[in-house]
Amino acid sequence: MNTTILIKLQEIVGTSYVFTDEENLKKYGHDETEDFIFPPNVVVKPSSVEEIASILKLANEFKIPVVPIGGQTGLSGGALAIHGGIGLSMERLNRIIEIDEKNLQVITEPAVITQVLRETVAEKGLFYPVDPSSMGSCFIGGNIAENSGGARAVKYGVTKDYVLNLEVVLPNGEIIWTGANTLKNSTAYNLTQLMVGSEGTLGIVTKIVLKLLPLYKHNVLLLVPFFKAEQACEAVSAIFRAGIIPSALEFMERDAIDWSLQYVDGISVEVKENHQAHLLIEVDGNYPEILMQEAEKILEVVEQFEIDEVLFADSEEQKNALWKMRRGVAEAVKANSIYKEEDTVVPRYELPVLLKGIKEIGSKYGFQSVCYGHAGDGNLHVNIIKGNMSDENWKTEVPKGIREIFELTVGLKGTLSGEHGIGYVQKNYMNIAFNTVQLNLLQGIKQLFDPNNILNPGKILPDNIN
Amino acid sequence: MNTTILIKLQEIVGTSYVFTDEENLKKYGHDETEDFIFPPNVVVKPSSVEEIASILKLANEFKIPVVPIGGQTGLSGGALAIHGGIGLSMERLNRIIEIDEKNLQVITEPAVITQVLRETVAEKGLFYPVDPSSMGSCFIGGNIAENSGGARAVKYGVTKDYVLNLEVVLPNGEIIWTGANTLKNSTAYNLTQLMVGSEGTLGIVTKIVLKLLPLYKHNVLLLVPFFKAEQACEAVSAIFRAGIIPSALEFMERDAIDWSLQYVDGISVEVKENHQAHLLIEVDGNYPEILMQEAEKILEVVEQFEIDEVLFADSEEQKNALWKMRRGVAEAVKANSIYKEEDTVVPRYELPVLLKGIKEIGSKYGFQSVCYGHAGDGNLHVNIIKGNMSDENWKTEVPKGIREIFELTVGLKGTLSGEHGIGYVQKNYMNIAFNTVQLNLLQGIKQLFDPNNILNPGKILPDNIN
Repeated sequence: MNTTILIKLQEIVGTSYVFTDEENLKKYGHDETEDFIFPPNVVVKPSSVEEIASILKLANEFKIPVVPIGGQTGLSGGALAIHGGIGLSMERLNRIIEIDEKNLQVITEPAVITQVLRETVAEKGLFYPVDPSSMGSCFIGGNIAENSGGARAVKYGVTKDYVLNLEVVLPNGEIIWTGANTLKNSTAYNLTQLMVGSEGTLGIVTKIVLKLLPLYKHNVLLLVPFFKAEQACEAVSAIFRAGIIPSALEFMERDAIDWSLQYVDGISVEVKENHQAHLLIEVDGNYPEILMQEAEKILEVVEQFEIDEVLFADSEEQKNALWKMRRGVAEAVKANSIYKEEDTVVPRYELPVLLKGIKEIGSKYGFQSVCYGHAGDGNLHVNIIKGNMSDENWKTEVPKGIREIFELTVGLKGTLSGEHGIGYVQKNYMNIAFNTVQLNLLQGIKQLFDPNNILNPGKILPDNIN
Repeated sequence: MNTTILIKLQEIVGTSYVFTDEENLKKYGHDETEDFIFPPNVVVKPSSVEEIASILKLANEFKIPVVPIGGQTGLSGGALAIHGGIGLSMERLNRIIEIDEKNLQVITEPAVITQVLRETVAEKGLFYPVDPSSMGSCFIGGNIAENSGGARAVKYGVTKDYVLNLEVVLPNGEIIWTGANTLKNSTAYNLTQLMVGSEGTLGIVTKIVLKLLPLYKHNVLLLVPFFKAEQACEAVSAIFRAGIIPSALEFMERDAIDWSLQYVDGISVEVKENHQAHLLIEVDGNYPEILMQEAEKILEVVEQFEIDEVLFADSEEQKNALWKMRRGVAEAVKANSIYKEEDTVVPRYELPVLLKGIKEIGSKYGFQSVCYGHAGDGNLHVNIIKGNMSDENWKTEVPKGIREIFELTVGLKGTLSGEHGIGYVQKNYMNIAFNTVQLNLLQGIKQLFDPNNILNPGKILPDNIN
């Protein structure tokens, strides 16, 4: 990185917030995606929207890549500086600006940790439902970038369903708001929804207005062991068809729960040899007696399948332990083997077909997989395990298998990513879900916002469109 | 319209589906916006996506405007052929293609009447919640175009919250799908949400995949008369702050309810001289005893304000009559006077300020207004009444007043339209909500999709941006 640029960056944010030492470049060169490290040439830590506007103006003038960096928990490589350039750490924009109790809204900066946001509004009796597994360390700004989901999406929706308005710095340094702080809006094209899920490629989000709900007061949590994994998938649809909308409906294959349990205390779950999968099912609301009725109905549904004894979590401690177990799956798999994670999503009734197909594709290409995820949304995370596969096969065979998994997914009217984004690692599978006409539209949007391609270049769009 | 083009259109859709007679041109030359008539030069009624693709290819080649026409119930002039050209009536694409009970989805063509769609899925125990007042005659495709709301949006959201995927014909005749049939999607920029609310200016929607919910079984409906209109507005926020999310929360000024009651049988509502406004409040769910508890809580809240006797609707007939009264307000106002309708929306707690401001602006410019709408969403319809105002003042003073109303709305963090769209009549107020940077982005999106500006030209964007 050229010295003139470094000096200008120092003038913008102050010398103590510009970093070029190897340790920092390495520290900001990864997220949670596999074992990738792509360090930026410089890390900059602005403290305000004005500073960010100045940085982008500079970068735009000199055509320097800018990669926004949040909580570094992404799973699609969205925060990797694959072309070097400026690593724009958002960490200092970490204030909750206002909790608007009168309108049930919160205005926040992007570097607030999602769990902190949830807990802070909960103290006022308000509820921000979106709870990605990484919520203890991810930033709300990153959730906007990837349109994150989580366990409660099945009832409450994903990030996009709570975003009312965004302050955004465009690549040319202009600052705009995308919409209004209203629950309804039919005023021109939806710039807010265009920004949500755009993975830092169209603009830098600097303020976020979110809708909140009144906080629910009670919940009931069940863990149901199934002797057949495909029946667990079938049960997912059956629960909805019985008229119940659970607040969470999570699927875990045997290995997922088994590996994760090693890292969790405070609960005794016996995973038996013949338990192929578990469903973790929650209902929530304000009336305990109604929740018990709904839990009874759910029991009636799952008992039509081949299940073992159902665990009712009967204390907060037990509930927390079950959730810790579920949230710990990705980490547990990571600790066990090198892996690649795919974020398939299909209409929920197609889950059994998807699961079966994934296993067959695995057999064909010689890899094992551990599947788990938000089955209520049809969102199945597929962890492809290296185990003792040769490096050669891992490199050549696995991508073929992934391509087939995505082809199956798209054939089932699903798509490549439910909540992790496309980022760096899935971009060259994009032509499975989109044809040239669609890809050209997507690229046209990118060019409209970012004609010099400085913002997070090399993400989302495939290397070759035509 | 040149004969060569007419012959080509006849070749595409068949001679019996191309109309150039005055009666038909006039019939398709209006929607429900004031008394505007802008006839197209030709009305074409295609029956398939392929025919629409051929029509757009032709129009694009010869740079002929194409205006999609649905149920003709729009309130922003979106379906008016202000530059003539081809009136593309969607009426023959009127099939519900599939009700997917397994995935709680429906796939439909755009010319299905919204109420028909709701009733058809209800027969299967499924619920499409979006219920614009015009649902008895509007098309679901028009709802997509305008991102329509309605009374239940306060709990269930608006059209955009139910659209999973769209088949769209682009202006160059290419046919694309915008997304996938999934509840979650983090796969590239959100083309689906870009299309929703784009008022037929980016593409022609030919198939729609909607999310459905299980049908709720019970509801309770209350009508609460307030002695002070602003207190009715204040009560709206207070209900939410008490932790209740009603399924409808409608505000009607005295004149609105008074005029509409003349058109409704089967109910006896005494609107007294000192009733300044009413709230119509509904809660819904599957458990009658819980609904009664919630109704009690609502009563506790509204009793903190100055109210008269509350009406509990105690039969289906009475509920239907109350809803007919509410839905009939726009028609009743229309029958009473020439008027202009604005579709203001603000964060809901700002409603009393907005209402007060509207009345003051009316006094300043010498017009009366009747206000009503979806107060739970902060969405207030402002009907500006001509009454015995002079034609001169109606033409010169009222636009100034409207501009001030919108400036107030935007100042309260609201915007120009909550659910009617910008269309023809509000486009030159767009610079109140958007600056040049934002307007250029919006125009860039239009140019990307429609470089020859053939699709519904002269809508949404102001005549002069810079």
